[in-house]
Amino acid sequence: MREVAVLGVAMTKFGVSDKTNLEMFAEAGLEAISKSSLNPKDIQALFFGNCLGDFEEGQLHMAPFAHAELGLPTGAPATRFESACATATVAIRHAALLVGAGIYDVVLAGGTERAAGMGTPLATRTFAMACQAHHESSAGITFPGVFAMAAHMYAHKYGIALSELKRHMAEVAVKNHYHGSLNPKAHFRKPITVDTVLNSMMVADPLQLFDCCPFSDGAAALVLAEANKARELVEKPVFIAGTGQASAGSLYLQRDLTRIKAREEASRQAFSQAGIGPQDVQVVELHDCFTIAEILALEAMGFYGFGSAYKSASSRETYLGGKLVVNPSGGLKAKGHPIGATGAAQVTEIVEQLRGECGERQVNGARVGMVDTLGGDFGTVCNIILRV
Amino acid sequence: MREVAVLGVAMTKFGVSDKTNLEMFAEAGLEAISKSSLNPKDIQALFFGNCLGDFEEGQLHMAPFAHAELGLPTGAPATRFESACATATVAIRHAALLVGAGIYDVVLAGGTERAAGMGTPLATRTFAMACQAHHESSAGITFPGVFAMAAHMYAHKYGIALSELKRHMAEVAVKNHYHGSLNPKAHFRKPITVDTVLNSMMVADPLQLFDCCPFSDGAAALVLAEANKARELVEKPVFIAGTGQASAGSLYLQRDLTRIKAREEASRQAFSQAGIGPQDVQVVELHDCFTIAEILALEAMGFYGFGSAYKSASSRETYLGGKLVVNPSGGLKAKGHPIGATGAAQVTEIVEQLRGECGERQVNGARVGMVDTLGGDFGTVCNIILRV
Repeated sequence: MREVAVLGVAMTKFGVSDKTNLEMFAEAGLEAISKSSLNPKDIQALFFGNCLGDFEEGQLHMAPFAHAELGLPTGAPATRFESACATATVAIRHAALLVGAGIYDVVLAGGTERAAGMGTPLATRTFAMACQAHHESSAGITFPGVFAMAAHMYAHKYGIALSELKRHMAEVAVKNHYHGSLNPKAHFRKPITVDTVLNSMMVADPLQLFDCCPFSDGAAALVLAEANKARELVEKPVFIAGTGQASAGSLYLQRDLTRIKAREEASRQAFSQAGIGPQDVQVVELHDCFTIAEILALEAMGFYGFGSAYKSASSRETYLGGKLVVNPSGGLKAKGHPIGATGAAQVTEIVEQLRGECGERQVNGARVGMVDTLGGDFGTVCNIILRV
Repeated sequence: MREVAVLGVAMTKFGVSDKTNLEMFAEAGLEAISKSSLNPKDIQALFFGNCLGDFEEGQLHMAPFAHAELGLPTGAPATRFESACATATVAIRHAALLVGAGIYDVVLAGGTERAAGMGTPLATRTFAMACQAHHESSAGITFPGVFAMAAHMYAHKYGIALSELKRHMAEVAVKNHYHGSLNPKAHFRKPITVDTVLNSMMVADPLQLFDCCPFSDGAAALVLAEANKARELVEKPVFIAGTGQASAGSLYLQRDLTRIKAREEASRQAFSQAGIGPQDVQVVELHDCFTIAEILALEAMGFYGFGSAYKSASSRETYLGGKLVVNPSGGLKAKGHPIGATGAAQVTEIVEQLRGECGERQVNGARVGMVDTLGGDFGTVCNIILRV
């Protein structure tokens, strides 16, 4: 396998947009291509992520239309990937594998989603189709419900009073909103307090409104190339050190909602390929769709022992300046969550961190960063490790 | 790149089913694995195709649930692909590329769709979302409309009376229904006549009901492996000689509806990789979603000169026993068209033809076969060339 590098990265401002999925993706894609000292005719393939364009805009088969908006050559195939919230990460991983294999030299990967445009009630119902329709959806389950059950189980399993766990979970939201306040592209830019969380509307007990990430509109994209070509084109290529992807099927196969088996396996693959361990990583963008989700992710990836990550934010260890900075972008929680674009925005943040381009939210001395994205109720996990 | 072979292939009977997408895929997938002398724990990745599970069954993110139904290992990632009607072909191509690259040794690829279950009027509307939503769908266009325009343009461009073209188009339907009558897995198994077509209901002038393929339920799957491993496991591995995939964006970028640029490019890639030309192929499964579509495909792939393929069926050249057998399975027209499964069923037919397992519809002496699948209104084309 050849070494693969990331060149230009770009994302739209996340939030509520009046643009279409294709318009947002074209904005991010053209910026990523331009920052790579390339033009669209140089792109040899498009790895495109979108989840629910059919429900959002009556648009299936969006990849070739994104290809058309960008002006890519006919010989460059455009392929749509969908892995629920892990959509763009899976698209980027496949792009990296095929560039590494020598099938393509220069490709574009990313995703777009117009999730805010649906409104939260409809978005909650439509995105819940990423649960298992026959065994789970018929029971009325949605994602807040799944993660609420996981929070209860976490408190029970580790003997933590629910009120204490909720306070620590709130600290995760406070951290990510603080980080988001430093990110001009974030959906939410106002710092909050623990009280903001604990006084907010109940969504699915014990998860309150500020335990939940928003549905956002947005797109993100990046150029990947063989490493030598990357070194010719950009000053600071960032290298893909390892990737992992794993599947865990339906909730009825999950023996323990506090242990996300697909993540344990995917991160093991990525660390093994990179030849490093959790102790070598300085910055992580991980899947904090709910506050409890950040805690579970930190444990499954091996950054904390099982049952110990719930204090990670309240101890300030995962804040900017802490020993492992988690979600310096604001995460899904504050930067926002345009489902099919999220993984590409996570990679964008890590790449900019490793290049030292993050201004007020820069993680000093970051040399290795990691991306973690969860699809559905633990069905898909994809991890990417990047290094300078 | 390593050589890649197809091991076990399987498809459900196509038609109207009372099974879910996952049940149909599990049936095909487990049969393909079993025919490969393997068990599910040997599969290292799943490349899964489905188009509209969300509209059909409220199921997004179907890949990990298919993974669960089959009992694949957690470390085997399950990835959903969607490229409209070319969905499964694109999934299989990516599987072949990653096995060729040495990322995986043994994988499962295929697709499933419950298109008949929606009923034709709703299916026509929902699958029309594979047209460009903003520029095309708002004009009321659906796929019968696109191919009707192509038929008019073909008649005009080549100076053929529309009534004459319609008779030749009807001959394509007669041929494919005859072939389908020999295929126990086909949706339609009754031979028809030219009069059946010309007396059928008008759908989109000049396309009548029997110019159009049906919406079907069904699934198909196959195991791909590195060639040496394949030789150990099965008696007659079939090798992937070349693949191609190309994109042509929106209809407004198509200068000429009789020339499908993405197909010209994708088939060129596949022939070039295989080191052969159209004259070396004995059997083709191609995308006859409408009778005119078969004619356009034969020309774009180089089997006939432009403006000359309309007589291919009436001359009997593309019948069983002809010089190039086209759609011996019955094609989309008679075998049926469960959108996300179609490409995998096409590969299944070609593999069984090359193995000499097709009984009454066997193409004698077939050594090289080709698969052609079109996604949307010319947006995606994917080709796969197979050989013994």
